[in-house]
Amino acid sequence: MRASVSLLRSARRAIGDRPAVVPLRSLNARTAGFRPITPTIPHHRRFSYSHDSPLPDSTMPKEKVSFTLKTPKGTRDWSGSDALLRDRIFSTISEVFKRHGGTALDTPVFELREILAGKYGEDSKLIYDLQDQGGELCSLRYDLTVPFARWLAMNPVSQIKRYAIAKVYRRDQPAVAKGRMREFYQCDFDVAGSNFDPMVPDAEILNIVTEVFEELGWNREQFTIKINHRKILDGLFEVCGVPPEKIRPISSAVDKLDKMPWADVRKEMVEEKGLDPAAADKIETYVSRKGRRELLDALLKDEALMANASAKQGLEEMGLLMDYLDAFGVLDTLSFDLSLARGLDYYTGVIYEVVTEGSAPATATKAAETQTLQKSGKKDKSKNPNLEDDDRSNDPSVGVGSIAAGGRYDNLVGMFSNKAQIPCVGISFGVDRIFSITKARMERERNYSAVRSTEVDVFVMAFGGKGFTGMLKERMEVAKSLWKAGVKAEFSYKVKPKLPQQFKAAESNGVPFAVILGEEELKAGKVRIKEMGLEEGHPEKEGVLVDLKTLPEEVKARLAKKNNPTTGASGTAVTELAQKVEGLNVEAAPKTEDAGV
Amino acid sequence: MRASVSLLRSARRAIGDRPAVVPLRSLNARTAGFRPITPTIPHHRRFSYSHDSPLPDSTMPKEKVSFTLKTPKGTRDWSGSDALLRDRIFSTISEVFKRHGGTALDTPVFELREILAGKYGEDSKLIYDLQDQGGELCSLRYDLTVPFARWLAMNPVSQIKRYAIAKVYRRDQPAVAKGRMREFYQCDFDVAGSNFDPMVPDAEILNIVTEVFEELGWNREQFTIKINHRKILDGLFEVCGVPPEKIRPISSAVDKLDKMPWADVRKEMVEEKGLDPAAADKIETYVSRKGRRELLDALLKDEALMANASAKQGLEEMGLLMDYLDAFGVLDTLSFDLSLARGLDYYTGVIYEVVTEGSAPATATKAAETQTLQKSGKKDKSKNPNLEDDDRSNDPSVGVGSIAAGGRYDNLVGMFSNKAQIPCVGISFGVDRIFSITKARMERERNYSAVRSTEVDVFVMAFGGKGFTGMLKERMEVAKSLWKAGVKAEFSYKVKPKLPQQFKAAESNGVPFAVILGEEELKAGKVRIKEMGLEEGHPEKEGVLVDLKTLPEEVKARLAKKNNPTTGASGTAVTELAQKVEGLNVEAAPKTEDAGV
Repeated sequence: MRASVSLLRSARRAIGDRPAVVPLRSLNARTAGFRPITPTIPHHRRFSYSHDSPLPDSTMPKEKVSFTLKTPKGTRDWSGSDALLRDRIFSTISEVFKRHGGTALDTPVFELREILAGKYGEDSKLIYDLQDQGGELCSLRYDLTVPFARWLAMNPVSQIKRYAIAKVYRRDQPAVAKGRMREFYQCDFDVAGSNFDPMVPDAEILNIVTEVFEELGWNREQFTIKINHRKILDGLFEVCGVPPEKIRPISSAVDKLDKMPWADVRKEMVEEKGLDPAAADKIETYVSRKGRRELLDALLKDEALMANASAKQGLEEMGLLMDYLDAFGVLDTLSFDLSLARGLDYYTGVIYEVVTEGSAPATATKAAETQTLQKSGKKDKSKNPNLEDDDRSNDPSVGVGSIAAGGRYDNLVGMFSNKAQIPCVGISFGVDRIFSITKARMERERNYSAVRSTEVDVFVMAFGGKGFTGMLKERMEVAKSLWKAGVKAEFSYKVKPKLPQQFKAAESNGVPFAVILGEEELKAGKVRIKEMGLEEGHPEKEGVLVDLKTLPEEVKARLAKKNNPTTGASGTAVTELAQKVEGLNVEAAPKTEDAGV
Repeated sequence: MRASVSLLRSARRAIGDRPAVVPLRSLNARTAGFRPITPTIPHHRRFSYSHDSPLPDSTMPKEKVSFTLKTPKGTRDWSGSDALLRDRIFSTISEVFKRHGGTALDTPVFELREILAGKYGEDSKLIYDLQDQGGELCSLRYDLTVPFARWLAMNPVSQIKRYAIAKVYRRDQPAVAKGRMREFYQCDFDVAGSNFDPMVPDAEILNIVTEVFEELGWNREQFTIKINHRKILDGLFEVCGVPPEKIRPISSAVDKLDKMPWADVRKEMVEEKGLDPAAADKIETYVSRKGRRELLDALLKDEALMANASAKQGLEEMGLLMDYLDAFGVLDTLSFDLSLARGLDYYTGVIYEVVTEGSAPATATKAAETQTLQKSGKKDKSKNPNLEDDDRSNDPSVGVGSIAAGGRYDNLVGMFSNKAQIPCVGISFGVDRIFSITKARMERERNYSAVRSTEVDVFVMAFGGKGFTGMLKERMEVAKSLWKAGVKAEFSYKVKPKLPQQFKAAESNGVPFAVILGEEELKAGKVRIKEMGLEEGHPEKEGVLVDLKTLPEEVKARLAKKNNPTTGASGTAVTELAQKVEGLNVEAAPKTEDAGV
């Protein structure tokens, strides 16, 4: 655990949310004063500045002001290798979505406030509202599910598989390096339709979960799909003697079992929520159980449970689901876990959460022993001097959380319009968390520094002796011929660049090929292609002269050979690493079997 | 013009921003009452609703409330063929960006309010603010340029080519069908760096503009890059006798020449802005001119202009730029236009705007004749009974506007930090407008209805006689084998689907192949592949039996053949249309040579 915490720390440094204080004489000033970079806790400073005077030459004194140059709390910029790695995760996921017949839906980043109201229980306080500037009252979307349900209610659609990859917004306490952000991406796939047979789309969704992680290069030991069923839970609580009005509160207490020991949960049930201790003890006999077929079989023989209509229906559906997952060959990724409850109000059937190493807080076990659970947001700052901006990335009581989650919600669309009571089931992937884990693994394997931030194939350069013009227009023409052929190419923006500078530019971006223009050679209609990074003594170390006319084809042939070493000779370390990144292959990491349980 | 207006109208109907009024007993109600769809002007209604009582069984009367089920004003959902077409435009553009060495940057959708302050002149009133909910004051980004400059100031980057494809927000009067939205996508490419020679990156940016539209299937007659230079403009105004403090206001009056006749612009200059009439008349002799080399050559001989240091520098840079564009072979897309001024404050060098048919208002010429210009937002509603929600899509005095725009901004980064005064130049593509034009053209050519909303290759189905089980698990297993091979496949979610229903599902989504499971055939380890839509009498009309084991390879071979008819036989109408859409080829439309000028 220690190793992974320190990895996360270095990942966080790499993510680099460096705030800089910049004093501005006025916000309109073209040139502003400069003060050296000083880390600050922006949360603790208030902004103040003078507004511009309407007069062009105001004699009013302008207050010298400063503000922190940073992104808003819990948000970050994505650039370079990080952006590239994340984009590859996106495209891997969306390929799987399309393979299953998904069609894209893109909704506005904000919705009418009424659309979101009453959908998220007590988490509604985390919704970002837009200021009332006249006109409609709007809020930033909290997830992609409610906008999807709103869209279904507005459009004449009876069935659809829709996917969406977009940012959502929650005013929660962030832990940036762990991928717990205020602005973060969700990748959702949902199936809506009223005329389907039970558990068939549910099974395809869970199959998609497995396919997504496998395509991301994870093996099945690296993630677990925890699954439960709202109808089983409701029946179980009834059978244990929980009064109907206490089912939701007791359910939300049970859901904390991945962060708290049973004793604390029991205390909350009995002392805070007034549950009969006997009922609590009965609940324990159920919620401590997890498994697969054998657990289901045991529950199907539980006469008390099977006498409850809700539990019976849930258990039978769970059996059907397991049959279908068997047909898809993915049943082994499942953990039927009676303690899984999930917070959102709108679920009505199966619910699931995908966990991995680091999903649960590092201190969960310790906390269980000492009975002194740290509550989030109540950290002792003196013990964590590195905490900036209330970021909880270094707080061991905070885990990465689930990396995907979802369930069935049959009544949500009907909240907008009962013309269309369309049952739905779906999954949402937390890409920022998946990114953080993938990056940490790649850094551990020292792969990450080899991720290139551009995909440039060729750097077009020129050299010459005395009276060298720089051949800028010639370089432009050659670059244009490569672009026309679809080759990614760059050249120096200097009129007379020096050759070493041009090589350095190519090397620093990991560009695999140089195309070199020499005055004499060009007069003869020839240019030189040089593969970068060949060892001394390689027969093509100094490059190969080719006809200018056939240059694009020559370059493309060499690129194809380099990118597909099975058909060709080459295959440098850079290529291999690039391929490793391409497939997002990660080494099997030791898995904490009970992570988050 | 009439034809294109009616096309835009039908495009708008297709986009379908249908508002529906839904009465809700309470916002938490699981089932809500229903009232038939009635078009309303949501802008004219106020929302009112009762909040939930904290008590589970409140005795407080719940007010019967209603709200409009719609997206916020000036926003829309993107789904089905629209989403697919737009995604193809995105990927076409980002491919060009990557080909030129672009690296992705993704910034948060909101910024600290101070970051945006003082950057947009009088358009700052269009910025969306987030509500103050405690903590930082934030606003939605207005463009992608200011966040890029903020990022440059925060990070140790001395040069970069960055691209970004993301939504921006402006509280303007929308015209949805014309792609004038409050939430809309921009696709930006910018080059930052302090050590480049003049006009080299500028030339590459303009080359990128041409490549993007060519890759989108436009020919060079279908768009014009209007270009000017802030230094030429400033010098020209000085030479004409505009006092320094009036240069910006006079510049913004000149910029209106694409919407107003000269007489109105002159009136604004002289009567509203107090310019000497003689200066105005002198300005006219310049700003009425447009051309390419010949205009530049004439201006280079203009002694008054050349005596002005700013104008001289601008004209010399323009000459250099034309040389470089000649080397790239794209000079013919340019129109050097002295009336182009652009609104934003931060430009310091070349400025450009890409226009096409429909960029200018349809009534510009008429307005010029009658001298009765309609001001936006002051429409007579009784004459436009179809106007909903103040959408100006049917308003002939509103054009599509420019489809791409940009320029050089050398001082913006320094507004955040003068440690890094990094010169920049860039371009922003207005994808929603490009989408609207592309879609209208495709509809005119009746191509659009053939755009599929999913990319499914195979529908897996089953049939059988008496005692038919539906073979659900077998269909699942076959689908899984196809997914594993990367084939996009679907199957019916019914346990016992009827064969006609399965065929209908495949046909309605334009799925090219069916894989059919029959009980007897499956026992023999065989399944049937059937290409959809073959004519009667075709030898494979009833499909071909293949081994279950080799099914994925058999399917992939057939798909490859179908998608690449040059190597195979097939090539149905659907394939051809799909390819047409793939390349986004559009027929050459007649171009109004003076559109928007």
